[in-house]
Amino acid sequence: MTDMRILVLNPNTSEGITARLMAAATPVAAPGTELVPLTASRGVPYIATRAEAQIGGAIALEMLAEHQAGFDAAIIAAFGDPGLMGARELFDLPVVGMAEAAMLSACMLGRRFAIVTFARALGPWYEECVDMHGLHGRLAGIRMLDGSFASVSDVQEEKEAVLVELANRAVAEDEADVVILAGAPLAGLAARVRDRIPVPVVDQMAAAVKQAEALVALQPRKATAGTFRRPDAKPTIGLAQALAARIEHR
Amino acid sequence: MTDMRILVLNPNTSEGITARLMAAATPVAAPGTELVPLTASRGVPYIATRAEAQIGGAIALEMLAEHQAGFDAAIIAAFGDPGLMGARELFDLPVVGMAEAAMLSACMLGRRFAIVTFARALGPWYEECVDMHGLHGRLAGIRMLDGSFASVSDVQEEKEAVLVELANRAVAEDEADVVILAGAPLAGLAARVRDRIPVPVVDQMAAAVKQAEALVALQPRKATAGTFRRPDAKPTIGLAQALAARIEHR
Amino acid sequence: MTDMRILVLNPNTSEGITARLMAAATPVAAPGTELVPLTASRGVPYIATRAEAQIGGAIALEMLAEHQAGFDAAIIAAFGDPGLMGARELFDLPVVGMAEAAMLSACMLGRRFAIVTFARALGPWYEECVDMHGLHGRLAGIRMLDGSFASVSDVQEEKEAVLVELANRAVAEDEADVVILAGAPLAGLAARVRDRIPVPVVDQMAAAVKQAEALVALQPRKATAGTFRRPDAKPTIGLAQALAARIEHR
Amino acid sequence: MTDMRILVLNPNTSEGITARLMAAATPVAAPGTELVPLTASRGVPYIATRAEAQIGGAIALEMLAEHQAGFDAAIIAAFGDPGLMGARELFDLPVVGMAEAAMLSACMLGRRFAIVTFARALGPWYEECVDMHGLHGRLAGIRMLDGSFASVSDVQEEKEAVLVELANRAVAEDEADVVILAGAPLAGLAARVRDRIPVPVVDQMAAAVKQAEALVALQPRKATAGTFRRPDAKPTIGLAQALAARIEHR
Amino acid sequence: MTDMRILVLNPNTSEGITARLMAAATPVAAPGTELVPLTASRGVPYIATRAEAQIGGAIALEMLAEHQAGFDAAIIAAFGDPGLMGARELFDLPVVGMAEAAMLSACMLGRRFAIVTFARALGPWYEECVDMHGLHGRLAGIRMLDGSFASVSDVQEEKEAVLVELANRAVAEDEADVVILAGAPLAGLAARVRDRIPVPVVDQMAAAVKQAEALVALQPRKATAGTFRRPDAKPTIGLAQALAARIEHR
Amino acid sequence: MTDMRILVLNPNTSEGITARLMAAATPVAAPGTELVPLTASRGVPYIATRAEAQIGGAIALEMLAEHQAGFDAAIIAAFGDPGLMGARELFDLPVVGMAEAAMLSACMLGRRFAIVTFARALGPWYEECVDMHGLHGRLAGIRMLDGSFASVSDVQEEKEAVLVELANRAVAEDEADVVILAGAPLAGLAARVRDRIPVPVVDQMAAAVKQAEALVALQPRKATAGTFRRPDAKPTIGLAQALAARIEHR
Repeated sequence: MTDMRILVLNPNTSEGITARLMAAATPVAAPGTELVPLTASRGVPYIATRAEAQIGGAIALEMLAEHQAGFDAAIIAAFGDPGLMGARELFDLPVVGMAEAAMLSACMLGRRFAIVTFARALGPWYEECVDMHGLHGRLAGIRMLDGSFASVSDVQEEKEAVLVELANRAVAEDEADVVILAGAPLAGLAARVRDRIPVPVVDQMAAAVKQAEALVALQPRKATAGTFRRPDAKPTIGLAQALAARIEHR
Repeated sequence: MTDMRILVLNPNTSEGITARLMAAATPVAAPGTELVPLTASRGVPYIATRAEAQIGGAIALEMLAEHQAGFDAAIIAAFGDPGLMGARELFDLPVVGMAEAAMLSACMLGRRFAIVTFARALGPWYEECVDMHGLHGRLAGIRMLDGSFASVSDVQEEKEAVLVELANRAVAEDEADVVILAGAPLAGLAARVRDRIPVPVVDQMAAAVKQAEALVALQPRKATAGTFRRPDAKPTIGLAQALAARIEHR
Repeated sequence: MTDMRILVLNPNTSEGITARLMAAATPVAAPGTELVPLTASRGVPYIATRAEAQIGGAIALEMLAEHQAGFDAAIIAAFGDPGLMGARELFDLPVVGMAEAAMLSACMLGRRFAIVTFARALGPWYEECVDMHGLHGRLAGIRMLDGSFASVSDVQEEKEAVLVELANRAVAEDEADVVILAGAPLAGLAARVRDRIPVPVVDQMAAAVKQAEALVALQPRKATAGTFRRPDAKPTIGLAQALAARIEHR
Repeated sequence: MTDMRILVLNPNTSEGITARLMAAATPVAAPGTELVPLTASRGVPYIATRAEAQIGGAIALEMLAEHQAGFDAAIIAAFGDPGLMGARELFDLPVVGMAEAAMLSACMLGRRFAIVTFARALGPWYEECVDMHGLHGRLAGIRMLDGSFASVSDVQEEKEAVLVELANRAVAEDEADVVILAGAPLAGLAARVRDRIPVPVVDQMAAAVKQAEALVALQPRKATAGTFRRPDAKPTIGLAQALAARIEHR
Repeated sequence: MTDMRILVLNPNTSEGITARLMAAATPVAAPGTELVPLTASRGVPYIATRAEAQIGGAIALEMLAEHQAGFDAAIIAAFGDPGLMGARELFDLPVVGMAEAAMLSACMLGRRFAIVTFARALGPWYEECVDMHGLHGRLAGIRMLDGSFASVSDVQEEKEAVLVELANRAVAEDEADVVILAGAPLAGLAARVRDRIPVPVVDQMAAAVKQAEALVALQPRKATAGTFRRPDAKPTIGLAQALAARIEHR
Repeated sequence: MTDMRILVLNPNTSEGITARLMAAATPVAAPGTELVPLTASRGVPYIATRAEAQIGGAIALEMLAEHQAGFDAAIIAAFGDPGLMGARELFDLPVVGMAEAAMLSACMLGRRFAIVTFARALGPWYEECVDMHGLHGRLAGIRMLDGSFASVSDVQEEKEAVLVELANRAVAEDEADVVILAGAPLAGLAARVRDRIPVPVVDQMAAAVKQAEALVALQPRKATAGTFRRPDAKPTIGLAQALAARIEHR
């Protein structure tokens, strides 16, 4: 295996979340894997709804257009995978979604996975993400915390006990074989709580790093046929410069 | 029925397509329905891929944020429904997608509908739109024209004969009970060709107008619960002004 | 839009229900839309089971055969849509089912709709109707009142409070984004209770009128191919006269 | 096993088809099983479309109401199972559909069954029957003869060679593991052609007899709960006398 | 109907279970049907998990290879149907699974069946069996007893009351129209408790006998095409002698 | 990342295939990953049917019971994943199936993957494997070579040209976005032919190694709840010694 550079793209504007993501990612990277973080410079602190995902996904494409050169793969490090399919179509390098990576990894550890997250607003968006990936039949359920929290960057500490309790209820009541602690602010939590949950717990960011490495190892070519070939050149108006250049084949 | 104002939002930058849409829409509007066109001022001339839909959907949200005040309903007048679910969540007025309106109308005219369109690139995006609406079981198939055309605004005249032939093959070979001529540049074509196709043909824009009128007639309140309630206020950075104001509850 | 005449066919023998249906329909009809009621002269007062739907659907076909001439569209105004697919096959005018119209309209107002009705017996039939239309993936659930009521014609007033409570539970517990108050005796109830339910509420009869208008506006031809073309002539024995004539192509 | 009497109900008016059905049924009946034929006295000679199935199903309920007393089970001997679910709800004895019996038997002989029939018009109705039974995932496909035939009662001899050819194409091209020769006029054909088809061939009527015997052997009680309990008494107007009595609990 | 010999293959090593199976089977066999029991000589006393089903299914193939000669059909008499698809492929006689027979029979008695069983460990395996047969849409749910029992051979007497209670809860809470008392140790229980459950109760072994008889009556040929034709000869190492001979076409 | 040892379990008896597998696996292993091959000492040279998978899966469990100690993960290196779910239940270390790994990896490179293999007999088994993993919605189709070949160990060289042609047809005709060259004898072929196929090509063995590494990195605990907890101790008769010990908790 040769060395590789992986872009960890946080489509949220919160640097605190990027720090969480990198802290979870670094320990599992293979020797020779370099992880480079990138935080959105516009958008919202934390994507949590369909509308924000629509906007944040477009921003993810802008970020990739500007920064992807020189990388072997990119991770869109938001659970819900905003912009993923467009990115996979538009760019030549492999792009992995953090939700996708977590769910596909979970599939190898049991029959049904539960998604446990920290805010009720996230449920519908996550469920539509599960559907987008065709994995509805593998989903045990989505469990969401009610109520508010002090800071999204620290919600994993603040709510640790109740998140563990939700995970345990998913196992006991929903027949979950695996638990995914979902939402970028929860990155890294799995390592701390896995002893208190009686089934395998998937850390979304750890999964994303390993899946990005796996794709690089497979040396996939960019499709020149099928539905993910690069679209033909097309004029644009008023788009971010690098994104416009990519779409216009400049 | 009281009078109503409906926004016809074209998320493409092509004014020629807007003209097509309005020409198809106007004849079917009920007395008292006012249709107001709006063309995107940034983006691409014609959305045709997943990446463009990601970007165009975000632009549709910007357009709605700036212009929706004073309307009773809005139509996102691009087949593929870019930004639809986010718009339905973020704004208070009913929002209809043109693909959604065409497909749901087609469901009342037979068991399976065919989607016939003018470019191969559109197929995957349209299929994912069918899946998004949970209508896969009602789809007979998607038929796409191969080859290039002179102008997207005039493709419906240039390719009329082959589009009719595709529609007829969908009926003969795919067991389609209904045909949708799909893609904004084909708006209005149905009226001209329906005598040459042996099953009902749905005009996407006509369907969208009537479905928008139907929703207004139902007087639906904005959800304050469920997954389409308006998201809580949230700070933003670098978004278009009106959209930022909407998200921030300003 | 030209004027149109729509047949409102109640396959139940209860005139009280027909009155309810017309009261809900009239306010939403477009200028120029004439609604003509027709009550079954044989059958049961209120169709509520699979067996009754089998019989009532055959009666609906008899009624259409006798009365459809001169109409632009027909509504089968019973939730469960008895006889709908046969009618769509046998006759030349567009025919809309009340359940179909309500569900398709609801699809444009959220992701999942709940069906709330006034009697436990209706549940299985309604669920099979959802399946028939391929909309299972959009259903949040069916909530049914237990217990008896004084009169089916007045059940909507008698049970108003508990029906609203059921609707609210569907929103809170089943993640319904939209509520359909289902069953012809509940026609018109939506307008009275919508302020007490935190998501859009669809009135089935209002939806049916607007969908019938939409179909007329689309000017769909009668299929001469596909699975809804008119069946070839065939001899009959012992059927109602007009229906026999229609089947025999007399 | 005690002796049993099974009603073979042909909802078509053609006595010739009843004769075909009995000829196929008799050889497979167990010792002690008495099969009693009953032909519809009103309706169409041969049910072939959705509208005819709606009518024929109601007639099947009339026939059962009048004749079911004294039988241990009944077979609705038309592929497509008109009236089956209503019959199962309304009456106390087990009722089997001929399509249902053939398909469920076929499931035990391979993974996917093909339905081969003698007229194009039958396809849509049969497909909806497959869906009604939730067996879509087990269907390899439906193959239909084009063109006309001299007599529906003798179509199995007239078209024997082409039906065999269709069956063989279903095996070769659709990956069918089992073939059902479908439609009451084809009853008994399986025995004559099975040596010319390289997979198991199910005779629909033979299957129906054995499944009816199986149900009687299981001694199933009439449900007093669940969705197939007998509906409560209800007044009727203008229905056939015995059916009215059954619905009214007289 | 000619006489027939059916092999009742118990892939468990418990003779007590075989006795239960035969006691349930014998009363429903048609005159002329001879049932011959066979108990596994190696394996586990009672298959209850995926791993045990993997092993027990291979043992069932060994047993069939050694004993199937001279039989008209075979029953794999373990709910979960270990080895069924392989057996159907490898051998020439019809082979029925006990779960398959029970579920398909249940389909003719209602819309949704519940599976009620005596140990929590059995649930996942049974659910995968339902999926294997493509019957997920017909399943109301699986209800399992918690806690331990004295002897698997006598669990049906020991737990009779709680099993009946579970069945009644499946009817009341899961909308089950039919109940299957599942797991070989429960064979014969249905006859004893059916008066205490308000919907039809299917005895798995009785169903299996009748379905085996049905298949024999259909006189299905061994497929020489399709996915269940006998595999080509292939060398083996270290397999049980008769099984090796069958695979090697010796 | 710490060092890890991964067992590459070939449930076939062919050492030539094991050599192929190791040749494909070795180049992609991360630094510190040790791959240890193990070939079945009993069974068939190459598993290709449902019956052989039933037997081979049981043999895989025997092999794991005897050899898994000291490994961090195991790969069941046969496309079709014989014994996978049982292994995941019975043993404490993560176990990956080669088909599973290839398919889940392919999901990250496009929407639909094609499976291309070298023998017609493999199709049904592979399709059931796709279903077992709930990935049917992601499958573009299975393409199989007809005709015989000289040696299973060298089939990838002998049939290279036609396999590439099949892959290209899957892209052109089935809308495959990704191609999996499936079946252990094809391990390593992807690297040689990927320049002749216009979409990403997944090597099944390379995918399996990277997925096994990914699972080890996630440090999943053995489930003590859910459907993959280790079954309780149970007596056995006549099973391979190590497997018996595992099942008996000795």
